[in-house]
Amino acid sequence: SRGPKQPPPAKTQLPLSLEELYRGTTKKLKITRKRLNSDQRTTYNDQKVLEVQVRPGWKKGTTVTFEREGDQEPGMIPSDVVFVIGEKPHSVFERDGNNLIHKRRITLKQALTDYTLELKTLDDRQLSIPCNEIISPGYRKTISGEGMPISKQPGKKGDIIVEFQVNFPSHLPDSTKQQLKQLLP
Amino acid sequence: SRGPKQPPPAKTQLPLSLEELYRGTTKKLKITRKRLNSDQRTTYNDQKVLEVQVRPGWKKGTTVTFEREGDQEPGMIPSDVVFVIGEKPHSVFERDGNNLIHKRRITLKQALTDYTLELKTLDDRQLSIPCNEIISPGYRKTISGEGMPISKQPGKKGDIIVEFQVNFPSHLPDSTKQQLKQLLP
Repeated sequence: SRGPKQPPPAKTQLPLSLEELYRGTTKKLKITRKRLNSDQRTTYNDQKVLEVQVRPGWKKGTTVTFEREGDQEPGMIPSDVVFVIGEKPHSVFERDGNNLIHKRRITLKQALTDYTLELKTLDDRQLSIPCNEIISPGYRKTISGEGMPISKQPGKKGDIIVEFQVNFPSHLPDSTKQQLKQLLP
Repeated sequence: SRGPKQPPPAKTQLPLSLEELYRGTTKKLKITRKRLNSDQRTTYNDQKVLEVQVRPGWKKGTTVTFEREGDQEPGMIPSDVVFVIGEKPHSVFERDGNNLIHKRRITLKQALTDYTLELKTLDDRQLSIPCNEIISPGYRKTISGEGMPISKQPGKKGDIIVEFQVNFPSHLPDSTKQQLKQLLP
């Protein structure tokens, strides 16, 4: 004969900001679960705080299981509690695996002349990246080693990839057009 | 009782150029088919020329059926011959319904100064379209009524839509960069 059965786990989404996934964090989560009274037949609502240790670089979909910490029912093994890591949208970066994509709109003047990209990292450092090359629309610039930490290779990080979009002026005076005609190849 | 059966039609692809679909054309197609000998039991290979009248504006997938012009077998109705209009790729235009998409790469100088787009239509007329607006990358300019004929509305045509891509110079001398800094907004 087989032993007592276990009900399926209770899965809870745990959405985290990119900053939290970058630095790692500890989340204390208060859960409510049914536990058996001493009569082993009736149940009461019990509260417990579970601690999820999020390591730097964890990806969405990562699961953390707390075995037998869920609901208890007469004659059964208590269910597991499972947290599923989620990723909240970010205003500056979009995650792509270990890389961080940053879309930046610049003016045509910035695209053609010397330009320094100012960008704050997820751990709040200010990067100043000189972009003295010509930046054509769709140009991707890689800032090596400034992406997400790689959880299985401590100390290693992916890249930041800046994708440029170039805003053209909506109108130029004829005199400017004439000068541009002389100036541009 | 039901009458004699008919085998499924023989379908033949008929790929046409955009020029042919624009102007309309007549295609003579020689087919080989089995026909019954006078004994009504044995067959011989017979050749026939079928004429497909392609009307201006026909789309790929249009079918033309020649009833009972296919293979003949004893005791059965001869099969139909069906031609399915196809569309050959074109070097200048891509068809989108009744519209013609034309992708044009221009230089940054052309994009910012006065520029005239020269474009040959499918019936070999030369269009000269002044583009004095600022052309930003991805800008779409519509040339009204110069697209594909609409077969069900004789005399009407769709549009040509020009999609611009802008080539930036790969390098500019520092002196030019300085002047552009003054010149551009």
